[in-house]
Amino acid sequence: MAPSNRPRNGPPWRGQLYDILFETDVHVGARVFDILLILIILASVLVVMLDSVESIEARHGFALHILEWVFTVLFTIEYAARMASVQSKRRYALSFFGIIDLLSIIPTYLSLILYDTRFLVIIRVLRVLRVFRVLKLVRFLGEARVLGRALAASRFRIIVFLITVVTMVVILGSFMYLIEGPAAGFTSIPVAVYWAVVTLTTVGFGDITPITAVGQFLAAIIMLLGYGLIAVPTGIVSVELAHAAHAARGPAGVRDRVCSGCRSGGHDEDARFCKTCGGTVVDVGGE
Amino acid sequence: MAPSNRPRNGPPWRGQLYDILFETDVHVGARVFDILLILIILASVLVVMLDSVESIEARHGFALHILEWVFTVLFTIEYAARMASVQSKRRYALSFFGIIDLLSIIPTYLSLILYDTRFLVIIRVLRVLRVFRVLKLVRFLGEARVLGRALAASRFRIIVFLITVVTMVVILGSFMYLIEGPAAGFTSIPVAVYWAVVTLTTVGFGDITPITAVGQFLAAIIMLLGYGLIAVPTGIVSVELAHAAHAARGPAGVRDRVCSGCRSGGHDEDARFCKTCGGTVVDVGGE
Amino acid sequence: MAPSNRPRNGPPWRGQLYDILFETDVHVGARVFDILLILIILASVLVVMLDSVESIEARHGFALHILEWVFTVLFTIEYAARMASVQSKRRYALSFFGIIDLLSIIPTYLSLILYDTRFLVIIRVLRVLRVFRVLKLVRFLGEARVLGRALAASRFRIIVFLITVVTMVVILGSFMYLIEGPAAGFTSIPVAVYWAVVTLTTVGFGDITPITAVGQFLAAIIMLLGYGLIAVPTGIVSVELAHAAHAARGPAGVRDRVCSGCRSGGHDEDARFCKTCGGTVVDVGGE
Amino acid sequence: MAPSNRPRNGPPWRGQLYDILFETDVHVGARVFDILLILIILASVLVVMLDSVESIEARHGFALHILEWVFTVLFTIEYAARMASVQSKRRYALSFFGIIDLLSIIPTYLSLILYDTRFLVIIRVLRVLRVFRVLKLVRFLGEARVLGRALAASRFRIIVFLITVVTMVVILGSFMYLIEGPAAGFTSIPVAVYWAVVTLTTVGFGDITPITAVGQFLAAIIMLLGYGLIAVPTGIVSVELAHAAHAARGPAGVRDRVCSGCRSGGHDEDARFCKTCGGTVVDVGGE
Repeated sequence: MAPSNRPRNGPPWRGQLYDILFETDVHVGARVFDILLILIILASVLVVMLDSVESIEARHGFALHILEWVFTVLFTIEYAARMASVQSKRRYALSFFGIIDLLSIIPTYLSLILYDTRFLVIIRVLRVLRVFRVLKLVRFLGEARVLGRALAASRFRIIVFLITVVTMVVILGSFMYLIEGPAAGFTSIPVAVYWAVVTLTTVGFGDITPITAVGQFLAAIIMLLGYGLIAVPTGIVSVELAHAAHAARGPAGVRDRVCSGCRSGGHDEDARFCKTCGGTVVDVGGE
Repeated sequence: MAPSNRPRNGPPWRGQLYDILFETDVHVGARVFDILLILIILASVLVVMLDSVESIEARHGFALHILEWVFTVLFTIEYAARMASVQSKRRYALSFFGIIDLLSIIPTYLSLILYDTRFLVIIRVLRVLRVFRVLKLVRFLGEARVLGRALAASRFRIIVFLITVVTMVVILGSFMYLIEGPAAGFTSIPVAVYWAVVTLTTVGFGDITPITAVGQFLAAIIMLLGYGLIAVPTGIVSVELAHAAHAARGPAGVRDRVCSGCRSGGHDEDARFCKTCGGTVVDVGGE
Repeated sequence: MAPSNRPRNGPPWRGQLYDILFETDVHVGARVFDILLILIILASVLVVMLDSVESIEARHGFALHILEWVFTVLFTIEYAARMASVQSKRRYALSFFGIIDLLSIIPTYLSLILYDTRFLVIIRVLRVLRVFRVLKLVRFLGEARVLGRALAASRFRIIVFLITVVTMVVILGSFMYLIEGPAAGFTSIPVAVYWAVVTLTTVGFGDITPITAVGQFLAAIIMLLGYGLIAVPTGIVSVELAHAAHAARGPAGVRDRVCSGCRSGGHDEDARFCKTCGGTVVDVGGE
Repeated sequence: MAPSNRPRNGPPWRGQLYDILFETDVHVGARVFDILLILIILASVLVVMLDSVESIEARHGFALHILEWVFTVLFTIEYAARMASVQSKRRYALSFFGIIDLLSIIPTYLSLILYDTRFLVIIRVLRVLRVFRVLKLVRFLGEARVLGRALAASRFRIIVFLITVVTMVVILGSFMYLIEGPAAGFTSIPVAVYWAVVTLTTVGFGDITPITAVGQFLAAIIMLLGYGLIAVPTGIVSVELAHAAHAARGPAGVRDRVCSGCRSGGHDEDARFCKTCGGTVVDVGGE
């Protein structure tokens, strides 16, 4: 893990501001700020979403416009405060959340200059990613790390699985294209492959469906295949999650297990929460 | 666990009534009463459901109306009996099942006063929750507890997973809104997000479907994502269920395992049923 | 397990006939007979299915009729032979496969007497169940037993899960009925509950879909619920299968493990197939 | 594993060519070649797919035709080079990838002779299977082997499961045919069985849906069945994957674990990557 970006010198308010903006458990203000931030982020995403509903835009368009500017100003102040509080401005600006923070404010300013602002809606919606700052909360961090570790450990198996599935839908889709043809909606191989994905993943829109007996027979086989194949990623992740959960407990047991909240040690091998403060107990060994 | 609400004094019939109404295995009458109650509850829910079918209401409306009153009177008597038999009336009235029991009877009485009774149908249907009293049956209780413990232990991971999924459908839905637009049915971002949920969860109604090549390509990716992502909650619950099942067996083995029916001890580590009475063997350790 | 129904006296051909008809691995003729029987059963089910296709019935109806009688005569001879070879005719006639064997032949004879034979199609189709005789094959028997044991061990948990799901669809369906109403196809509570099942199980026919914003929001929640809930039965069965697979290996290890084919013992704890004959190695302990 | 098909004599360029064409980690050229090959294969499959889109074919048909010939010539040269470099030409020509390699080139040559080339599209699409050569990459090979071993170990259980599912859809489909009849789209038993597969696998196209109350009730049961049954293959594969992952680690631990990259040994039992070169650590024991 990289060293903290907390200011190592300068006036004490910078350090305090950093704690509030970037930390969670150190400062009471940080918890309050986090909850406020989440609420504002969710409200601002809701505004973007409602703005796209024609009937609401027609009636409350002006109010939504005002709200959007209020949120943008708030986010701009927050961005400036984050910039002011970090040790390395460059490092924050280029970090994942630094970019997302910036992307949360520029579309509104850009809408003053640009004529066609339709594509900006995507950038505005990306601010929903800021919700993941909530995962800083210690309790979630440990869980997210276990999930992430399990998915990372199973990435090769999942790639093998995905290559197999993609190969299957290409071949099966081409067969369906030959069997059914344009009359049933299978107008080209790409469309037939799209249909094969819809069917194998058990989504089944029904916008394209086979009408010949042979096509329905092959479709039934694709469905049974998709119904059974789902066992593979599930099995992979289950095994890796069990492994990750076991690893989190650690082979060397007690020694490595400390509370991520109060940093107290001496927890049992199967302790999930700190016996003192209720924070998540994590292993601090190797890796 | 809170102390029993069984009457600690008063005439003996109150204690016996309590056993019949609230207990299951103590009294033969309690088993008979439970089965009768389940049947009446199911019949009364069936009446509510059939009452909403126009053709049946037109022909048998009066009979259904009579039946509804019969069930309401029975439930009222039951509610009064429960009230009479408990030690603390207040505690019963404010308990989960106390509220459900009350909600089972008031809609019918309210329908005498109110003009528009359409919304009462929901309250009337809530009486189906009373079926869960059957879970008092010891054998189910242990199983429900294992399930509940596994779900509780995995709640943080499931929340992390849900936040990820919701973030994904918001961003992917917005992309589809931009790509497909109102012509394909993606009339607004909320509708597009609804479509993304329909697709990611592999439900696939087909009321809205992409028609452009780019849209179908992105849709195929969303489907494969949803098809693979389902492995995550499944893996989480599998691991926690294995853990909960293991915990139910207990690290200290034999000592903690007693029959939940006859309370006899000394069962093997892998015994699931009591060797004496056939009741479920559960662990009585800590937690 | 009940004692064998093999004839304990009488001419030797009765015993040999029994071995061919009821056993699998004892007699070479039994294997040949099994494969022939499976083929005839599948062909006869295919005839029933094709007979229901109007265009095929119009053109090849007579040929199908002849084939049906050929199969019926063959099955009648088989039934008579089974009757002749068993020790207790009554026990065979009342056994599961005895009843299925009888149901395989009577519809064709009944069609001579009855006028409306449409409902007979179901009874004729039930003969597909006879395919399960193939599971007598030793290798499958062990696997089917492990599956069956896992499902049996998890039956209470699955019932708890099913009660929860049914309660949920009843309540959620009623809500959707109130929110959407007949205009969107939610014509009554039973139909709305049917829609809730279609949605929660991620089937998603799309014959009924919500059209109001509130309805689509609740629908999205139902879908996410269904998407996540599927983890529960999967977790239950995974844990029990792991347990059953472990139990099949046995705590006492080597001693209890014999080949179900050649009955040889001394197999390793993790041996799945007999080192001598390739049959499945099963545990013969307790249960 | 069969002995290598690497030329055991002849000029040294043959051995080097073999290493580039058939091996991955031995020769730098082999890695470059592999990546180039994958890109060309994907490009050639894309050409086949785009060629089937009428609007693209109309505008860019000639360019696609030229590209197809370029790829065919490249694949022909590759096929000749492979033939030239192997020890046994016969063995390569009859191997799985030998046949696929040949099938990648003949359709284009056949299109010079044949009039109706529509069915050739399938053979042309089969070249997508060549992508699996990438799985030669050591890291994937180990993972694919674990997946394959788990699926192989569970094949009997999966067959038992499939027989059960097929039997169920045949019987349930026939019931639906009787209940719903042609008016609802259940025009014959095969169509009704197709519908039962669509429903049980939770695909749910919605092209055929029940309209009677009894039909919807039975459909709801089929859906719940399918929703719950998916737990069975998932559980089977999870257990076998856990078993296969455990087996890959080996009961004898350290001894058998070597790096598949640098072939160094002495890795920990739970080491996944080589501590020296970062390659995957695999077990080299028996099987």
